[in-house]
Amino acid sequence: MPLLDQVRIVLVRPLYGGNVGSVCRAMKNMGLSNLVLVGPEQHLNARELHAMAAHADDVFERHRNVGTLEEAVADCGLVAATTARPGLYREHSLTPREAAPRLLAAAADTPVALVFGPEDDGLSNEDLAGCSVMVRIPSSPAYLSLNLAMSVMVCAYELFGAAGAYEPPVERTPEAPADMKERLFDHWRRMLLDIGFMKEEKADHMMLGFKRAFSRGPMSVADVRILMGVVRQTLWMAAQYRKYRSLARPGGRAAGG
Amino acid sequence: MPLLDQVRIVLVRPLYGGNVGSVCRAMKNMGLSNLVLVGPEQHLNARELHAMAAHADDVFERHRNVGTLEEAVADCGLVAATTARPGLYREHSLTPREAAPRLLAAAADTPVALVFGPEDDGLSNEDLAGCSVMVRIPSSPAYLSLNLAMSVMVCAYELFGAAGAYEPPVERTPEAPADMKERLFDHWRRMLLDIGFMKEEKADHMMLGFKRAFSRGPMSVADVRILMGVVRQTLWMAAQYRKYRSLARPGGRAAGG
Repeated sequence: MPLLDQVRIVLVRPLYGGNVGSVCRAMKNMGLSNLVLVGPEQHLNARELHAMAAHADDVFERHRNVGTLEEAVADCGLVAATTARPGLYREHSLTPREAAPRLLAAAADTPVALVFGPEDDGLSNEDLAGCSVMVRIPSSPAYLSLNLAMSVMVCAYELFGAAGAYEPPVERTPEAPADMKERLFDHWRRMLLDIGFMKEEKADHMMLGFKRAFSRGPMSVADVRILMGVVRQTLWMAAQYRKYRSLARPGGRAAGG
Repeated sequence: MPLLDQVRIVLVRPLYGGNVGSVCRAMKNMGLSNLVLVGPEQHLNARELHAMAAHADDVFERHRNVGTLEEAVADCGLVAATTARPGLYREHSLTPREAAPRLLAAAADTPVALVFGPEDDGLSNEDLAGCSVMVRIPSSPAYLSLNLAMSVMVCAYELFGAAGAYEPPVERTPEAPADMKERLFDHWRRMLLDIGFMKEEKADHMMLGFKRAFSRGPMSVADVRILMGVVRQTLWMAAQYRKYRSLARPGGRAAGG
């Protein structure tokens, strides 16, 4: 994921170690590794930081510390600032989904930065003046302001998605071929008749309902095989039942009806 | 946001109060308010819970506690379970972006649930058996497992987006009319000539570059007015400069060249 390696997460004067740790984990979850803290960091609670970072301690170990936002983004071709407050410059903001492809396009040529302000006040207008793009995370008017690490997660999640970096770790579900499914439905029909669930004259109508129910999501070869196994076992059981019943009650009716 | 009111967030046996508080905040940020905890909750650290909930304490105050996952989702038409582990049933998973519209479509008729497992182990196969849809958050192979509250945020963010619930609190940027922009470019050209930035024979070529630069993003009426103000001020300053220079050096050249 070379594009994501070019994306720098910049935290300006963060207050809480737990949030910085959560940011590290969110970054690593979403394929980011490049963290810069602006301002002093001795006040950050180390225990909480490492607890929240969990297995993303390495992101914090490799972080850079600088004195000013200017230093943090000096070599960046595009600097995006996150903001929750309305006001000067802030209205021309992009959503994270709009900003992600712009950041990645720029990241092909130069480092880019995504800048987050302190937990209490966010970025100052002075901080914002040095940023070329404003990003505002859609949120409810009932509570607009996201936790710092949550903001990083939403932006990182959009970047990860936009980078197309996600390879599903297991195969998606390819549909089973239609003739295989038809065979399953034939067997299913026979089973339902055989166990006395429905009578022949209602069977076509009932099967339409079952087919619809089975077709709401993808059905794979493995799914069909499992269902076929269920059908076979049920047919065997029904046959056994009829056999033993006729042994127990000579002259008794066959199952069904 | 009536659809979002029908979406229930179910936390199965959560371990940490801080995470539950973070979940409350993430929910309120994204327009959700319906929280159910499954299992005992006396062990949850109340201080950390309220600290992380911040202004979303009301979500926790209104939560429901039940003994089993079955109780939590009994009346739900669609139950989506989140999982990070691969394995049985887990491969037919949707991304949060795929799941969100399905959940909302179902929420038009019935409550729906989004279920999250404990921090250490996630949902058991037994828990998953009662869920109709699996949701898996795309994440980096370097660190697949998201923090509980982060998982809730990503899913809630997709639901909020899919619900179209986001009303930008300030106007988006409507473009200024073309004739207004042309007038700006005319003034800009005059200014650049006037301050000696370019000569007349290069002006058309230079202005193409400026127009392109000014057209990369939307330019509003307010933007045009501000830039016009800059131009006017600069033209005034250049005129003053020439006036005073000719006073100081009688017979001196006019500015430019």
